[in-house]
Amino acid sequence: MKKRIGVLLSGRGSNFDALAEGAASGLIPNAEIAIVISNREGAPGIEKAQSRRIETCVIPSRGLEREAYDKLVIAALQEKRVDLVCLAGYMRLLSPAFVRAFPNRILNIHPSLLPAFPGLEAQRQALEHGAKFSGCTVHFVDENLDAGPIILQATVPIEDSDTPETLSARILREEHRIYAEAVSIVLAGRYRIEGRRVLTSLEKK
Amino acid sequence: MKKRIGVLLSGRGSNFDALAEGAASGLIPNAEIAIVISNREGAPGIEKAQSRRIETCVIPSRGLEREAYDKLVIAALQEKRVDLVCLAGYMRLLSPAFVRAFPNRILNIHPSLLPAFPGLEAQRQALEHGAKFSGCTVHFVDENLDAGPIILQATVPIEDSDTPETLSARILREEHRIYAEAVSIVLAGRYRIEGRRVLTSLEKK
Repeated sequence: MKKRIGVLLSGRGSNFDALAEGAASGLIPNAEIAIVISNREGAPGIEKAQSRRIETCVIPSRGLEREAYDKLVIAALQEKRVDLVCLAGYMRLLSPAFVRAFPNRILNIHPSLLPAFPGLEAQRQALEHGAKFSGCTVHFVDENLDAGPIILQATVPIEDSDTPETLSARILREEHRIYAEAVSIVLAGRYRIEGRRVLTSLEKK
Repeated sequence: MKKRIGVLLSGRGSNFDALAEGAASGLIPNAEIAIVISNREGAPGIEKAQSRRIETCVIPSRGLEREAYDKLVIAALQEKRVDLVCLAGYMRLLSPAFVRAFPNRILNIHPSLLPAFPGLEAQRQALEHGAKFSGCTVHFVDENLDAGPIILQATVPIEDSDTPETLSARILREEHRIYAEAVSIVLAGRYRIEGRRVLTSLEKK
């Protein structure tokens, strides 16, 4: 039986696309995207999913309290019996009930070396702070913003000539790479958590 | 005329030693350590300086207000006509008057990728946070802790088997390398500051 991944997105879904490609190519072994859920109608990521013939679902969040909205999303994910939830540019904090429904089974990717530059426009933050390196982080999701235990990170240099756009593009290549790798690690159970540390090397073949 | 560097330290002075070696070997061109000042009697860094026949000065800070203490240190540095002040494990915040006395002429090195993990025991902080990369940062010093514009950074991976000691040793090798390089850049004026960004590539040969 293939492991089933649910993806939540709000925008273009480039990380969703990388995960879908990883599952299709076997880079992420024995897995498939079971459902893609967007809180925004017209998110380009939904079209990307449709063109891959992956099931999609738009659940508009406007006007709903967080808890009420999350119940709808949890129900949709549970109906599809997903083993893992991957956030891919999903622009909402999860409620504690959502986090409890999928313990250590929700991942997010963030375009900085957390704990530096959490929140929006992380690439611009890094550039304006004058950092010489940034990168990206795949982490377990808890109720706090960009805060759960870190599974993988990758670094990229920041050049004097960088703009938010050029830096974002450089980081994005690393995002696609480490997100697929982190999903493989988690689906295979090749990790253990000690405090905030996610240890993965001992379980590697 | 050689450029004159004043070093402030409180402890073992391993970064002082790297700068002294860099100046002696020509890795930092046309520079010398004019004075090493410690706020602590018995700091091993003072012995290291003496064995290199570099002038040293212990100015105990105990019992003195920050402003009064800093006046003594500023006077000692000015008497030696230093062009640049390098903090090397100097366990004190500088007063605004100190920062004003040497505008953009005070450097510090910190064992993390700032803005992540400022303050004490940065290596332990990174490890306990579960970061997968850390590193070190050379920055201009302002009145705030580990906060001024960043000149250079270097990254190192964090291994599952790391302890604060093994991680510190890995970072320290990079500290010695980038501190000497940053001092060379600043002494040669090969940089310009835009906002918080320190741009160095345009001025490179």
